[in-house]
Amino acid sequence: MSSNTFGKLLSVTTFGESHGPAIGCVVDGCPPGLELAAEEFAHDLQRRATGKSRHTSARREADEVEILSGVYEGRTTGTPIALLVRNTDARSKDYADIAAQFRPGHADYSYWQKYGIRDPRGGGRSSARETTMRVAAAVIAKKWLQQRHGVSVRGFLAQIGEVKPGGFDWSAVEDNPFFWPHAPQVPELESYMDALRKSGDSVGARVTVVADGVPPGWGEPIYGKLDGELASALMSINAVKGVEIGDGFDVVAQKGTHHRDLIAPDGFASNHAGGILGGISTGQQVVASIALKPTSSLRLPGPTVDVNGNPVEVVTTGRHDPCVGIRATPIAEAMVALVLMDQALRHRAQCGDVGTITPRIPAGPGLGEAE
Amino acid sequence: MSSNTFGKLLSVTTFGESHGPAIGCVVDGCPPGLELAAEEFAHDLQRRATGKSRHTSARREADEVEILSGVYEGRTTGTPIALLVRNTDARSKDYADIAAQFRPGHADYSYWQKYGIRDPRGGGRSSARETTMRVAAAVIAKKWLQQRHGVSVRGFLAQIGEVKPGGFDWSAVEDNPFFWPHAPQVPELESYMDALRKSGDSVGARVTVVADGVPPGWGEPIYGKLDGELASALMSINAVKGVEIGDGFDVVAQKGTHHRDLIAPDGFASNHAGGILGGISTGQQVVASIALKPTSSLRLPGPTVDVNGNPVEVVTTGRHDPCVGIRATPIAEAMVALVLMDQALRHRAQCGDVGTITPRIPAGPGLGEAE
Amino acid sequence: MSSNTFGKLLSVTTFGESHGPAIGCVVDGCPPGLELAAEEFAHDLQRRATGKSRHTSARREADEVEILSGVYEGRTTGTPIALLVRNTDARSKDYADIAAQFRPGHADYSYWQKYGIRDPRGGGRSSARETTMRVAAAVIAKKWLQQRHGVSVRGFLAQIGEVKPGGFDWSAVEDNPFFWPHAPQVPELESYMDALRKSGDSVGARVTVVADGVPPGWGEPIYGKLDGELASALMSINAVKGVEIGDGFDVVAQKGTHHRDLIAPDGFASNHAGGILGGISTGQQVVASIALKPTSSLRLPGPTVDVNGNPVEVVTTGRHDPCVGIRATPIAEAMVALVLMDQALRHRAQCGDVGTITPRIPAGPGLGEAE
Amino acid sequence: MSSNTFGKLLSVTTFGESHGPAIGCVVDGCPPGLELAAEEFAHDLQRRATGKSRHTSARREADEVEILSGVYEGRTTGTPIALLVRNTDARSKDYADIAAQFRPGHADYSYWQKYGIRDPRGGGRSSARETTMRVAAAVIAKKWLQQRHGVSVRGFLAQIGEVKPGGFDWSAVEDNPFFWPHAPQVPELESYMDALRKSGDSVGARVTVVADGVPPGWGEPIYGKLDGELASALMSINAVKGVEIGDGFDVVAQKGTHHRDLIAPDGFASNHAGGILGGISTGQQVVASIALKPTSSLRLPGPTVDVNGNPVEVVTTGRHDPCVGIRATPIAEAMVALVLMDQALRHRAQCGDVGTITPRIPAGPGLGEAE
Repeated sequence: MSSNTFGKLLSVTTFGESHGPAIGCVVDGCPPGLELAAEEFAHDLQRRATGKSRHTSARREADEVEILSGVYEGRTTGTPIALLVRNTDARSKDYADIAAQFRPGHADYSYWQKYGIRDPRGGGRSSARETTMRVAAAVIAKKWLQQRHGVSVRGFLAQIGEVKPGGFDWSAVEDNPFFWPHAPQVPELESYMDALRKSGDSVGARVTVVADGVPPGWGEPIYGKLDGELASALMSINAVKGVEIGDGFDVVAQKGTHHRDLIAPDGFASNHAGGILGGISTGQQVVASIALKPTSSLRLPGPTVDVNGNPVEVVTTGRHDPCVGIRATPIAEAMVALVLMDQALRHRAQCGDVGTITPRIPAGPGLGEAE
Repeated sequence: MSSNTFGKLLSVTTFGESHGPAIGCVVDGCPPGLELAAEEFAHDLQRRATGKSRHTSARREADEVEILSGVYEGRTTGTPIALLVRNTDARSKDYADIAAQFRPGHADYSYWQKYGIRDPRGGGRSSARETTMRVAAAVIAKKWLQQRHGVSVRGFLAQIGEVKPGGFDWSAVEDNPFFWPHAPQVPELESYMDALRKSGDSVGARVTVVADGVPPGWGEPIYGKLDGELASALMSINAVKGVEIGDGFDVVAQKGTHHRDLIAPDGFASNHAGGILGGISTGQQVVASIALKPTSSLRLPGPTVDVNGNPVEVVTTGRHDPCVGIRATPIAEAMVALVLMDQALRHRAQCGDVGTITPRIPAGPGLGEAE
Repeated sequence: MSSNTFGKLLSVTTFGESHGPAIGCVVDGCPPGLELAAEEFAHDLQRRATGKSRHTSARREADEVEILSGVYEGRTTGTPIALLVRNTDARSKDYADIAAQFRPGHADYSYWQKYGIRDPRGGGRSSARETTMRVAAAVIAKKWLQQRHGVSVRGFLAQIGEVKPGGFDWSAVEDNPFFWPHAPQVPELESYMDALRKSGDSVGARVTVVADGVPPGWGEPIYGKLDGELASALMSINAVKGVEIGDGFDVVAQKGTHHRDLIAPDGFASNHAGGILGGISTGQQVVASIALKPTSSLRLPGPTVDVNGNPVEVVTTGRHDPCVGIRATPIAEAMVALVLMDQALRHRAQCGDVGTITPRIPAGPGLGEAE
Repeated sequence: MSSNTFGKLLSVTTFGESHGPAIGCVVDGCPPGLELAAEEFAHDLQRRATGKSRHTSARREADEVEILSGVYEGRTTGTPIALLVRNTDARSKDYADIAAQFRPGHADYSYWQKYGIRDPRGGGRSSARETTMRVAAAVIAKKWLQQRHGVSVRGFLAQIGEVKPGGFDWSAVEDNPFFWPHAPQVPELESYMDALRKSGDSVGARVTVVADGVPPGWGEPIYGKLDGELASALMSINAVKGVEIGDGFDVVAQKGTHHRDLIAPDGFASNHAGGILGGISTGQQVVASIALKPTSSLRLPGPTVDVNGNPVEVVTTGRHDPCVGIRATPIAEAMVALVLMDQALRHRAQCGDVGTITPRIPAGPGLGEAE
């Protein structure tokens, strides 16, 4: 399969560079009959967009989605759905200075070594601009998951630098520019980001995504495990350096008696596993977290080499996010939703449409919800 | 692609259950002409095997590999290499009691919900016995990587419970049953494991794998990224709940000025990135770590339900590892080696056989080596 | 996907050489719960086997199938089903003379050019021995198709050399060693083959496969079309040089008014299309035919070159079929059945389990059945 | 892999409906550094286009290709190349009458049965309009094959109805609107087509494609055979009902002594095999032929049913080709070129960049060239 395509039955192929004429995607394998209109993409694309607050890059893209195919009279036909977004606010001249240099911590050098040619404008293909189309594609997946299975996929910013949420409330997440789950901390975060931006430095972040309503049985052992596919899907997001399912790296220090989620007829007692055992969903909340590195595009100078191998000092002057994790929440949600829909179709293929296997154990307590 | 196959050009299909007649794999896409003999599998299979020390499961398998195809007069022919290992020490009666119960923290319930049928003997397909064939397949990958590119893949146990290495020396790793990189701590670990085994409980662990000599340019953006594929390959190992590349989750609290690996003509100054930028290798050490949960197969009883939905108390009496992480080092190495070889072939397909792109920056300091 | 694997959701990976220790396959993606026993493979493997009549190769293989995995207490579990057949009657010394020569019309030269190494014993991987495992895998597909959808897949020999059937009766096909649909011609065919065998020459053949009961809707446009996948599956059979769907090459001289299959509420009026339109089944009989070349392994000498490029005269003394088409009927059925089951699962994935779309047009007249 | 994508390493994903806003494709896996400009697509798209002579559909499309990604400063970068063509001459009202009817011989009924919804305008996704993008994608493949390996791919119309070429001259093929290889017959064909068009009927055709310069060794046994992949690629073209390699169905009546292509140090003596043995190229011309059915969109009425199952009489009034085979030559070339480039990359992946295996036998006589 092509390396710009992911998903086995619901497959998404993305294309486009940061400063090229357009970015787009082809979503193939969507069941027929789903209602779909161009307006439906706006909400999640706006959640992902730059330029909405002073805490993200100043680039302002309309991100208007044109549906090129696969929809007839407002419903999907089962044929490939092509989505197109024109780039309108690219400032390629910002990159003229660094076209012949390799920014430390960027894909500049590795792309160059692989291909012997690279599009330096805005990072070209390696830019997070590409994630626009993941979010667009996932609008379809989220809708289908909700309509067909009652599954919802939500995310939040779980840490930024050293700052962790002091409380948790889903209803707060969409009411601040950080997707932060604890409203009282928002002013603190605003100050934190302002200071960071002024310093010219950047910082890392942690994002958590939760899927509610996933029925037991999704996921294909051994190499198509639900957690395995979440791992590659999430790791493919720009700047991600780690992926956790459930308790993640905390399990290293746990005892088995603590970790195992006990089962009772009225529900699981806990969810250390993050809703996945043996690569297959258990019916509990599916919980995944990612670590995003601090962006390497800094105003602060640093030593590097140019394409001739000479040492130079590089300064990045383009428009960049001081914390790429801030906008990563809808992107991470998108990848989780796309993986889930793909697995749902794969499960239906092998095991049939409707699960009727007993006993079915209730999910038990969910993250941030009344227990 | 089938869910029991991984790899795009070097593909590995595994089959077999823990207590079935045999386990095996088919390795397809291997270049022709590689010398290969059945004896070469013994070393890594013994590193992975149970029953060698009191700290792992007591099951003793000969793990004798039969080469069924793909090798002629001692060399690979380019056709699929099938490897077979007969199961010889299965004690299925240990599982009679739990055949109708769902062990908390195990794949029992999720397999049952997916398929409506499961082989309870030794965990069936969900058993870590399957990883034997990953290790066998990777013997081929390790050899090819070494011969063709001078790449070596090594791992070690980086944490067990709360215990972290107090020092680091590659030469210590293979001289103790834990793959522990600091010899003076081995007695402490022995005591720790003895106490744990007596308690009937289990504990988690962390394993790190390092690949030296990986040239820059391996990895396919966007959805075939080297780190993305490492993530799914490693997450597919039994009990893994988290994957990190380079600094992993530590990046959450890092600043960009700290994280970015500065570049000089005589080498990278650091390797926070773990040797991968934009999904493509940089020529530095490739570093990946995993978190392994404490096994859920405990002698200590716990509440669960049976297949009729009735509450029961379960006790696992089969032979199990109190810390599955101990034997995970060769398995994690295997997955890294298989991903690397696959990516090497993919890179050759698109970009040609020999990298000659300049400038090529030296790797810089490696983990645990003189800087 | 590996080149020794086919099928997207029901995937079959085969391995093994003609004179290696064993041949085998891994069938992945089979729905759970299907009853399956080792004895069920015998019937179709015997239909394909050599050594049953004087008209095929004298090699006598037991073709005993061992189920290595994927079946528990007589039912499939949804995990990969590995099947193994040991080679028992290989006479490799027959090939010593030709190990360093390229037989004209054989894969000897092309394998050598690709890999620089080849297993000359019995043709190695290029031998039709490999098709044993396709037939074995298809036993599972045929059973599932019959049980789940009432689909049956049958084939017959439609031409041998210049001889065409003088009549058609399904009930005759299994009562002669040629799968010939017209009993009165069997003595003529016996004489024809006896004379051919004495002459040392070989002859081509045509085989037709018919699938009854295929519901409308199977097949994925554009590049996963049912006819497209039948074409590659059938072309992959040894010696096949052509594939036709329905009227096949006869359409070149047809007019549209003749070719189009008119539709009436009580059924299609004809089936020139072979049951497939736009790559999707129509509910009519699916009809595919293949052309098999005369085998190139002849006792009659012919000029060629050796591995040093010197001209030599080659004579093939091993045991060979004077008409490989005779045994090709069960092999062609196998490939059709495997493609159909794969497409059935793919259709279920995207479009759901049960077709309820109206109007559904009856199939109309079938090949060789009362109209 | 998605069903609208083909190719393993050079993969092409197409999207778009006949009367939708646009059609397009994403070409992934192309080696970096290939020069590519939008103008280069015009030549082959014009060869495929309708509306150039009275013998094809009257629809006139500009078929202007926009390169959306993957090319920087005139060279491919190794990232996905997206190509877009806007539809400009769609007349959807022509289809209002037949939107609720199933045209006999068309994909109308089968799409309806699969999806329960279909875009009737111009045939929607099942229209040959889609092949525009195959031809566009293949412009890249043809160029790379020529530059890198000196491979050329050419086709011609080998039969139309009962009319066969009375001679053969490559230089004639591009000088008439039929791709006919024998100039003196062109007036006869003009009259034939005029009469056919007046009658309201249509006719079938045969197209042959020849690839010169293919080195030995391309093709992957067993299920990725070069001929197997040519078969599915060619069968996926609209209206194709049969595929032949080399002598194709003529082999049924051939003897082995006739069919086998004898080998001498100075070249193969003949090419009955069509340049492929055991699924791998031999270094001879690769020759493939297809049968195209007469289009079913006729002005002449015929009985069918409507979406309510009632019998109706259908008349197709849209713009259609009386012989779809006339424009199929560049489409068939495209599919052959795309398969060859994909196999070239796959061969390089497994077996290395440069073939140096001896002895290499010259190709011998080519079709229509001096022997």
